[in-house]
Amino acid sequence: MNAPPGHFYLIGVGPGAPDLVTLRAARLIDACQVLVAPRSEKSEESLALAVVRDRLVAQQVIEHVYPMERDPARTAACWAALADRLAEDCAAGRAVAHLTIGDPLIYSTAVYLMAQMAERIPAERLHVVPGISAFQAAAAITVQPLTIQEDRLMLMPATSLDEVALALERCETLVLYKIGARLPALIDLLSRRGVLNQARLVCHVEQGEREVVLSDLRQLADTRIGYMATVIVRAGHRRWEPR
Amino acid sequence: MNAPPGHFYLIGVGPGAPDLVTLRAARLIDACQVLVAPRSEKSEESLALAVVRDRLVAQQVIEHVYPMERDPARTAACWAALADRLAEDCAAGRAVAHLTIGDPLIYSTAVYLMAQMAERIPAERLHVVPGISAFQAAAAITVQPLTIQEDRLMLMPATSLDEVALALERCETLVLYKIGARLPALIDLLSRRGVLNQARLVCHVEQGEREVVLSDLRQLADTRIGYMATVIVRAGHRRWEPR
Repeated sequence: MNAPPGHFYLIGVGPGAPDLVTLRAARLIDACQVLVAPRSEKSEESLALAVVRDRLVAQQVIEHVYPMERDPARTAACWAALADRLAEDCAAGRAVAHLTIGDPLIYSTAVYLMAQMAERIPAERLHVVPGISAFQAAAAITVQPLTIQEDRLMLMPATSLDEVALALERCETLVLYKIGARLPALIDLLSRRGVLNQARLVCHVEQGEREVVLSDLRQLADTRIGYMATVIVRAGHRRWEPR
Repeated sequence: MNAPPGHFYLIGVGPGAPDLVTLRAARLIDACQVLVAPRSEKSEESLALAVVRDRLVAQQVIEHVYPMERDPARTAACWAALADRLAEDCAAGRAVAHLTIGDPLIYSTAVYLMAQMAERIPAERLHVVPGISAFQAAAAITVQPLTIQEDRLMLMPATSLDEVALALERCETLVLYKIGARLPALIDLLSRRGVLNQARLVCHVEQGEREVVLSDLRQLADTRIGYMATVIVRAGHRRWEPR
């Protein structure tokens, strides 16, 4: 199968296991002529590319190194330059896919590229293929429900623990990212709220031997892992209201 | 390939398109001897089964009709009876999979069966395979980010509009289910908050001709569709804090 010429795809490849790619993503990765794999300047390899490495045959692979600093101007310039190049590929009739770990629309740098491509190619040629997000794989590994009945689910960075405390009052399940050095304070907060036993920590989910799954957050001493961790807190449950 | 004998899988098959199934789900569906497909007593066919119909060869298919009423005793008895039967299949060395539309851990009746199976088979034989959830596919269709940088994402039923109003203050992106007859009041709320233009409504996403995508909620007159709709409100954006 050939991909439609001149189309651009933002493809989520899931959390890391090659078999958590969807059939649609696999087919498009096989069919596109150009694959873009993002790699942060602090990483040695593109995680997204590693997921699909066994599918690579004759596709041109562009490893795109993007800045990790929070300089909006530098970030925008970096993605604009990539978009210029990819729009040229599309104009020349090639099908292009940008690979993203997880889902392209959930905390992904793919969104910056999507915005730039939207200014360069017709809307009907721009597509997003959803992928399994890390929090879904983490919940699956721990075999715990995320939401049932009237439950509310919140995904948020744990940048402010005051906001985490507020969120615990407003949802039944809380998914936290970017914990890092705040892990001891988070453990303290969850303990005071009586929900530490209902929290699970997962790092590098579905990434083979790197995967870490903890049912007791106090076991994690390594704060470098803390920055990559997803914590899921099942704080409560809201039943259906009587009709 | 054969699936490991005596193992039980809760498999998410995604929102509806056969190619939004993951490779892992497809392989296990092909390899299990027994497939359970849930169907509500108000539906003519199992949506989950329809997604994988082209994969069916020699698997035994059990269509499990479950009650839609909110009677906890009747619901529990219904799932317990199914779990008894499936645990017998596992004990006899068969591999069994229960299919779920979307993700098994996000607003799915699969969780009731999971709890019952956990009482009947060893934990190491109970597996969850995540699936693309409808909200991810809806975001992909509308080509809009769910979260970037410091954004918070909330998934909730729109049972109480007072709670929806509160949630709009506590997150940047809101995913709403079970809207139904509350749609006019929801439109009014979003309009008063100045975010109606940032709301999208999607029904039956990735279900072929049944799919409905609206960028103006006021176009939806059919409240029967309203009950099946997912509304995504992109209410704001939180940038990174300066370091």
